[in-house]
Amino acid sequence: MELVFLGTSAGVPSKERNVSSIALKLLEEQNSIWLFDCGEATQHQILHTSIKPRKINNIFITHMHGDHIFGLPGLLSSRSFQGGDDLLTIHGPPGIKEFVETNLRASGTHLTYPLSIQEVEKGQSISKGSFTVEVEKLDHGIPCFGYRVKEADKPGELLVAKLMERGIMPGPIYKKIKENDSVETHDGQLLKREDFIGKKKKGRVVTIFGDTRLPEKFQEFAKNSDVLVHEATFEHSKEETAKQYFHSTTTQAARLAKQSNSRKLIITHISSRYQAEDDNWLLEEARKIFPDTEIATDLSHIKIEAL
Amino acid sequence: MELVFLGTSAGVPSKERNVSSIALKLLEEQNSIWLFDCGEATQHQILHTSIKPRKINNIFITHMHGDHIFGLPGLLSSRSFQGGDDLLTIHGPPGIKEFVETNLRASGTHLTYPLSIQEVEKGQSISKGSFTVEVEKLDHGIPCFGYRVKEADKPGELLVAKLMERGIMPGPIYKKIKENDSVETHDGQLLKREDFIGKKKKGRVVTIFGDTRLPEKFQEFAKNSDVLVHEATFEHSKEETAKQYFHSTTTQAARLAKQSNSRKLIITHISSRYQAEDDNWLLEEARKIFPDTEIATDLSHIKIEAL
Ligand SMILES: [Zn+2]
Ligand SMILES: [Zn+2]
Repeated sequence: MELVFLGTSAGVPSKERNVSSIALKLLEEQNSIWLFDCGEATQHQILHTSIKPRKINNIFITHMHGDHIFGLPGLLSSRSFQGGDDLLTIHGPPGIKEFVETNLRASGTHLTYPLSIQEVEKGQSISKGSFTVEVEKLDHGIPCFGYRVKEADKPGELLVAKLMERGIMPGPIYKKIKENDSVETHDGQLLKREDFIGKKKKGRVVTIFGDTRLPEKFQEFAKNSDVLVHEATFEHSKEETAKQYFHSTTTQAARLAKQSNSRKLIITHISSRYQAEDDNWLLEEARKIFPDTEIATDLSHIKIEAL
Repeated sequence: MELVFLGTSAGVPSKERNVSSIALKLLEEQNSIWLFDCGEATQHQILHTSIKPRKINNIFITHMHGDHIFGLPGLLSSRSFQGGDDLLTIHGPPGIKEFVETNLRASGTHLTYPLSIQEVEKGQSISKGSFTVEVEKLDHGIPCFGYRVKEADKPGELLVAKLMERGIMPGPIYKKIKENDSVETHDGQLLKREDFIGKKKKGRVVTIFGDTRLPEKFQEFAKNSDVLVHEATFEHSKEETAKQYFHSTTTQAARLAKQSNSRKLIITHISSRYQAEDDNWLLEEARKIFPDTEIATDLSHIKIEAL
């Protein structure tokens, strides 16, 4: 599980930061890659990574502003050209289906793979193999969604040393112990599963917010994220401006991370009013409240380790 | 008058070549810039030039394939953001108006400037100040147009030395000579304009083709171009493939340049099957037939000088 930030700017591209897109690599888990938003030139950014467009099988769109969707038609076309055959599913706000279909039709684009477009709604839970994606509606003036990606918990491991101590040697019985509440051995011992199974391993949680103002309202949704990705379009002192434009500040993102008991915060969607040299103090504003914060830059990536 | 090649690839972007777009800088002539096609990430390419989006006041689209139009919504939005107030006119094939309007509506984009979208047709002549743009329909499977940009001829200059030789000194009479077929001087000389005006200066002609097969059919349209810009998606030996996919080869573009008596040919829209190291031999194929050929690369530019 790894996040790759393909575009980290707000509204317009700059030389340093492209408009929004984030890849979530699930190569070990599902041999697939998911995309969150797809601003213009996302496919160009991908050319500078090891990501293969044909491995992208789910795209989640937070909202319909141009800097989050204008790269979609081109990416879909190129995925065809680059030998994609597998189903691709796009999840997004109302209007996403018409947007994609109109663009493909107008450009005479015929995809070589099946495309499914699903409009999401608040409270929905989307199941994808061993992952579940929960959908929350944010506060951005137009319909805008956040996605909480939750890996299924893994059952604990068999406590082999403990079994062997009791004289129970590896064999078909190990499978039985794992799969039943209790098992009787040949020599009449009653073994309870709970005594021979280690602690279950909690699945990882990555919560990716779309654009929003007043993010602290969404504490519950962000709760216990291993990685929380949140916009910080503005600096701390611009809280009023942020509210007016339906965006968040560095500090608000950090407060959300703290209040939601998240492990790590990554701020992104940085206004093009800020230059590369501003990254440090913007980051410091957030770290004052939530020390384990990073500021995303284009093509930066972060592995999400289980606890 | 200067051409800047913003994207020179066919179909999909590569690391070296972006998809189609060409800027025609008319800064001295009209303080404006025209764009021909607008593939995805054209606005990103512009960030690496001195071009100001607000100076772009005309965009000509050759056809509706995605690699020629998917950058339009983003460029239009960013032009707003970067302080464009002046009218922008888009000229293009049927469908361009619906495409642009749907994208702006879907993304909730409100432009800060007036936008006019004009659908073109074969044989049309569009007047733009001292330039005229003629429209030809090409052979690309879907409606696809070429644009011939013709600068108005400039009247000849007054032959001042000759006038002074005859004792006619600079003064208001010079203006009269320029503006009338003949003028009588105070001392009764009859001066015919044709005797005192130099040769008129022919306006420059830049012809920009869209994608097409069998380009030699369009000799008349390309006639006497100072600069002819033409696609060469395929190498010489792939003439059959080119025909099948409605494209041209290096050689066909060169033959068109020769037969149309053009001064200079620039080939572009190079298939991504070719690498940077193939440029030389592709160019040589064309030069064998038309020596004054160049192959466009991204961000290359060429001044168009009058003869
Ligand atoms: Zn945004
Ligand atoms: Zn093309």
